[in-house]
Amino acid sequence: MIIRPHQHWFFRLFDWHGSVLSKIKNRLFLNVAMSCVALICLDWYETLGIKLTLAPFSLLGIAIAIFLGFRNSVSYARFNEARLLWGNLMIQQRTLLRQVKTYTQASDEELRPFVNLQIAFPLLLKDQLRKNAPSSDIGALLPADLWESLRRDPFPCNQILFLMGKWLERYRQRGDVSDILFQSMDQTLSRLASIQGGCERIASTPVPFAYSLIVHRTVYLFCTLLPLALVPDLHYMTILVSVFISYTFISLDALAEELEEPFGTAANDLPLNSLCNDIQINLLSMLGERNLPPRHQPNRHFRLD
Amino acid sequence: MIIRPHQHWFFRLFDWHGSVLSKIKNRLFLNVAMSCVALICLDWYETLGIKLTLAPFSLLGIAIAIFLGFRNSVSYARFNEARLLWGNLMIQQRTLLRQVKTYTQASDEELRPFVNLQIAFPLLLKDQLRKNAPSSDIGALLPADLWESLRRDPFPCNQILFLMGKWLERYRQRGDVSDILFQSMDQTLSRLASIQGGCERIASTPVPFAYSLIVHRTVYLFCTLLPLALVPDLHYMTILVSVFISYTFISLDALAEELEEPFGTAANDLPLNSLCNDIQINLLSMLGERNLPPRHQPNRHFRLD
Amino acid sequence: MIIRPHQHWFFRLFDWHGSVLSKIKNRLFLNVAMSCVALICLDWYETLGIKLTLAPFSLLGIAIAIFLGFRNSVSYARFNEARLLWGNLMIQQRTLLRQVKTYTQASDEELRPFVNLQIAFPLLLKDQLRKNAPSSDIGALLPADLWESLRRDPFPCNQILFLMGKWLERYRQRGDVSDILFQSMDQTLSRLASIQGGCERIASTPVPFAYSLIVHRTVYLFCTLLPLALVPDLHYMTILVSVFISYTFISLDALAEELEEPFGTAANDLPLNSLCNDIQINLLSMLGERNLPPRHQPNRHFRLD
Amino acid sequence: MIIRPHQHWFFRLFDWHGSVLSKIKNRLFLNVAMSCVALICLDWYETLGIKLTLAPFSLLGIAIAIFLGFRNSVSYARFNEARLLWGNLMIQQRTLLRQVKTYTQASDEELRPFVNLQIAFPLLLKDQLRKNAPSSDIGALLPADLWESLRRDPFPCNQILFLMGKWLERYRQRGDVSDILFQSMDQTLSRLASIQGGCERIASTPVPFAYSLIVHRTVYLFCTLLPLALVPDLHYMTILVSVFISYTFISLDALAEELEEPFGTAANDLPLNSLCNDIQINLLSMLGERNLPPRHQPNRHFRLD
Amino acid sequence: MIIRPHQHWFFRLFDWHGSVLSKIKNRLFLNVAMSCVALICLDWYETLGIKLTLAPFSLLGIAIAIFLGFRNSVSYARFNEARLLWGNLMIQQRTLLRQVKTYTQASDEELRPFVNLQIAFPLLLKDQLRKNAPSSDIGALLPADLWESLRRDPFPCNQILFLMGKWLERYRQRGDVSDILFQSMDQTLSRLASIQGGCERIASTPVPFAYSLIVHRTVYLFCTLLPLALVPDLHYMTILVSVFISYTFISLDALAEELEEPFGTAANDLPLNSLCNDIQINLLSMLGERNLPPRHQPNRHFRLD
Repeated sequence: MIIRPHQHWFFRLFDWHGSVLSKIKNRLFLNVAMSCVALICLDWYETLGIKLTLAPFSLLGIAIAIFLGFRNSVSYARFNEARLLWGNLMIQQRTLLRQVKTYTQASDEELRPFVNLQIAFPLLLKDQLRKNAPSSDIGALLPADLWESLRRDPFPCNQILFLMGKWLERYRQRGDVSDILFQSMDQTLSRLASIQGGCERIASTPVPFAYSLIVHRTVYLFCTLLPLALVPDLHYMTILVSVFISYTFISLDALAEELEEPFGTAANDLPLNSLCNDIQINLLSMLGERNLPPRHQPNRHFRLD
Repeated sequence: MIIRPHQHWFFRLFDWHGSVLSKIKNRLFLNVAMSCVALICLDWYETLGIKLTLAPFSLLGIAIAIFLGFRNSVSYARFNEARLLWGNLMIQQRTLLRQVKTYTQASDEELRPFVNLQIAFPLLLKDQLRKNAPSSDIGALLPADLWESLRRDPFPCNQILFLMGKWLERYRQRGDVSDILFQSMDQTLSRLASIQGGCERIASTPVPFAYSLIVHRTVYLFCTLLPLALVPDLHYMTILVSVFISYTFISLDALAEELEEPFGTAANDLPLNSLCNDIQINLLSMLGERNLPPRHQPNRHFRLD
Repeated sequence: MIIRPHQHWFFRLFDWHGSVLSKIKNRLFLNVAMSCVALICLDWYETLGIKLTLAPFSLLGIAIAIFLGFRNSVSYARFNEARLLWGNLMIQQRTLLRQVKTYTQASDEELRPFVNLQIAFPLLLKDQLRKNAPSSDIGALLPADLWESLRRDPFPCNQILFLMGKWLERYRQRGDVSDILFQSMDQTLSRLASIQGGCERIASTPVPFAYSLIVHRTVYLFCTLLPLALVPDLHYMTILVSVFISYTFISLDALAEELEEPFGTAANDLPLNSLCNDIQINLLSMLGERNLPPRHQPNRHFRLD
Repeated sequence: MIIRPHQHWFFRLFDWHGSVLSKIKNRLFLNVAMSCVALICLDWYETLGIKLTLAPFSLLGIAIAIFLGFRNSVSYARFNEARLLWGNLMIQQRTLLRQVKTYTQASDEELRPFVNLQIAFPLLLKDQLRKNAPSSDIGALLPADLWESLRRDPFPCNQILFLMGKWLERYRQRGDVSDILFQSMDQTLSRLASIQGGCERIASTPVPFAYSLIVHRTVYLFCTLLPLALVPDLHYMTILVSVFISYTFISLDALAEELEEPFGTAANDLPLNSLCNDIQINLLSMLGERNLPPRHQPNRHFRLD
Repeated sequence: MIIRPHQHWFFRLFDWHGSVLSKIKNRLFLNVAMSCVALICLDWYETLGIKLTLAPFSLLGIAIAIFLGFRNSVSYARFNEARLLWGNLMIQQRTLLRQVKTYTQASDEELRPFVNLQIAFPLLLKDQLRKNAPSSDIGALLPADLWESLRRDPFPCNQILFLMGKWLERYRQRGDVSDILFQSMDQTLSRLASIQGGCERIASTPVPFAYSLIVHRTVYLFCTLLPLALVPDLHYMTILVSVFISYTFISLDALAEELEEPFGTAANDLPLNSLCNDIQINLLSMLGERNLPPRHQPNRHFRLD
């Protein structure tokens, strides 16, 4: 994710980092090339008696803009829901620890293994969503045998939740926590399970493929044919206007593609590393830990992973 | 559902599988034919003094694009809600088993019949939603008499939920589980009932028929008349431009029709088989089962059922 | 509601039943007449030096399409919420009966009067929403004095819920059901009250009247003036193009009007009779009843009431 | 709110009551005047060599329609949320009384003061939202000293809720109601508090002022300049077309302004008096009261306050 | 936030305060300058044989309006969610105090430290969201050592919630409050934690940067090139029309930028100071305090901070 400090509106126009420009520059060069071809062939082209006027392109461009607008809404809704789920993950983790600390009155020492499970949960979820193997620094938090078993489990987060439940159940069994208070903590666990399931759903269900295909295709075909329709009126200005229009459409198409998969590692995707780090700092700080890990900061291109 | 591995933007333009192109190719050929007719009749047509200009089509095309955009939103919202319900089904099934394992402290052996009910639930729901008879592999999971009774029941999922409730009630009766913990599990059952009801609602309530009819009709009439309006200006280019515009509108209309019924078996519908399979693997793995069934994979056309 | 079996896309274009065409044919004839008047007066009209060009109509048409699109969203949202409430009604009724059967362990015989209250609830709600007197077949389900009192009550569903609560309270008083389990059932009753209140809200609050009036009026004025703007260019084609554009706009306006009142009895409204019937079958089947009433089927015009 | 009985589509076109026409007639007259000025100055104006063509207005008009469409969505969402909150208020009041009657088994006589608090709650909320002093008929429902104290309280609804809680607490203290049942009733009180807070939020937070200002301004400037762009082509028809386009834009702007403040007293705002009246009738009827106050009816202009 | 008393529609057109005009006047002057350049160069420009017609700008302008409309929706949704969270904060604070007063029956004196924690919570949240150090007047409410510790805590609100939980736990430990009633209060605390987490999420996650960059850039490039396309037809009117169109687009872009960060201090952002003040007044008034602090009022530019 790009976290840009406030910029003057004027300098913002020329901001290079964080835009999708670097991604689509090849496609815009193709468009420039197409415009040049159209310019060169103009004389020969006019002898054919074919006049590709702008009118049908106008109609088509607006229609494509409407569909692209819809595709952007859908992609943004996925991005937003993913962020909401991770925000909720932070909330429920804090609430769970607050409940456990208040109800069980366990010492910080006793709580440590439980908090380690809490810290491992988002880390494992992150690796699962990005289709990576569980990263080895999770192992440092957990007993060796558990770590072994988690690495072989296709749904390790599930197992963590089950262990948390069992950890809490011990207090209930011993009568330290009444059924009612246990119920409250258990509901928080269920909410963590909902968050995990929601993230898995987003990761495993792309936007209907035909949809992104149709929009992608029509955007490109439109931008490719556009110079032919512009050139009879605009001559040399064709290059400028055609690249401008193409930039508008192609960059939004490219951005929609990035936002569509919010758990990816593209510039505009969610900074899962940093969110995991935030959760860890919060939980450790609630445990009275002094040596908190430093907070992740955006890199010099204002990007947070 | 189509699960496409990442493609370069350029090759994506020529992807054939997973688009709706195969479905609408007849309609596009009709459009080519209409364009040819328009081209051939052009001379005779111009002597009639009728000039079908593009202007009214421009207005109409944009209006239709707006309505088509709305229809797409509605269809996608149905698809999305259906996916949400099945994602929630996975979540509640996991939560239920976690609760049952933690609260009742039953052995994995004792839990087996209950987990079989859990596995049968999504399978029965799938067959009900797709209007198929319950598939015979469900029978293997259940006692023979129950299987007989389920096959005759118009709402078999309902009966499964009732049996789950009775199974849990036994533990409450014996005093193994307090009323409060029983309440928690019972609420999870109620959520399963809500999911079932939600799916039935989507399956039994189509998008208001007049709505899809009006959009479908105006899209086709528009695409059919379009060549007549394009031909005076574009001559031979009419075929290209007319097919391009028609592709944009007709493919979105066809996709909206697919997404409208998310429980169908078209290429862009939900992969219910694979979702049932995922739930089964999750539940069995939570039960400590070693021999898990393999996960469904997309076929060579990247399609997951 | 229209439940149309799958049609080939081509034949669908000529489907007559279930469209709003029958409703708007008069308005389209008026439009044809207007086009003919415009054609006949064309020569005289041109001598006046007034040229009603299409350009302002193009602008206006797109603006109206945007507003009509919004009005359609609003109407559809009402339809959808109404369907959601009735779907939820089914869910809560099933859940309530499951809870009552599991918790109270009452025999099917004892449960019968309670289930009759459950069956009467949607029937009374339906009649209230459609502003009919309670239909007499509800009387057969209930004790005579209750039926008398319900017929005089302006909010009979309310009274049914209160009686259900009292019926459950008896079991709590006798100690058959603990406070906690009673709480669960009582929450289900509260959800039924929410559903009732939600339906009443939709029925008693129309879309802001000025809104539907403004859209209705501008659509008609637009369609009436349109032939005057089309005729200078299109001559005889005016009739075809003008009717086509009018069909697009007027049919969507008419459909929005139908969906706006989802509890009405128009072709695209909710099939409340059939939903009540479904609830009844479900409840009786859960009670082990053998002689279930038959399920409602769409009539030969594919319409379900 | 306007509650219009069903009208034939044709007569609806000429409905005067309930439209915003009366509100915007001055603005439309200004527009007619502007058109006349444009007509008169046409000759002089053409000698200046300035040609204000419709093309930039077309672009601008569509852009404004898009923004106006968004503003309408926002205003309608506020209206709808306000209606939802008041609908929910009815639901929670009924549920609360049902719970209190069932759980406490208090006689109707004992319940009377509590029901009076319930009836006073929406009345006080209404006056607070409309920024009126509490109307004196509330005083008749309450003890004199409470009434005095409420009149001086800036948030009287808050105090009512607190008194309700204390009233219920008495039953809990006496052991008539268990903690669990008390919890259920208390949650209903919390929902009433949420409704109150939601209404206060809508009333105290307008749509961002700059937003409605920008749209308001561009709509008017657009409508004022429009005749200048129409007159070269349309001559005398300018008046008709310009008023028609202005009507479409200005009436929607005026309506958005009305819906924006749903607790106001304009024609399309919520009928808070009638909603309070409905709640009162419901509660009294649940208490077995015979002499119910009559229900509010729309006045002869179909308006309900 | 701007709280404008009702204005006549005519005077509203000339309202200066609260619009974003002051912010964008430089950009509009640039546009005027560009128009003048275009006017001066017109003759030389026409000799180049380049004709920048309005048609491609029309297409582009509408496309940009659609994307800008989407960006406005996204920004407004953030603003609205932020307002919802703070509205909910008020609701939960009131509910918490109502519950604590009713359940614990503590005297107002005993409650004072708890209410101080409640008052400190929104103040600390406000400072955290606006990235300020905790303001010193919070210190007056709290014990000195707690204040010291809060100032060093990166997430002070978290600590406040934990202290509230511990304060309530004392009553539970002493048996003054049963587990069930404690559960109700604890759930209210969890809701406060959700609100805090939601606000932090909005503050730490901007709208995807590429999105606002693309729209910002295309809006400016469009407005800059527009005079070149308008000047051949409109001559001197170019300045007026070009500034008008630019005003429409640029002001909405600037407003979207303000609403995007609802916790900022721009004119259209949320009045967090005033919301904190309202919460304080409510809580103190519920505690029977006589000397309530005065309510914040809009300043003479109708602005509330």
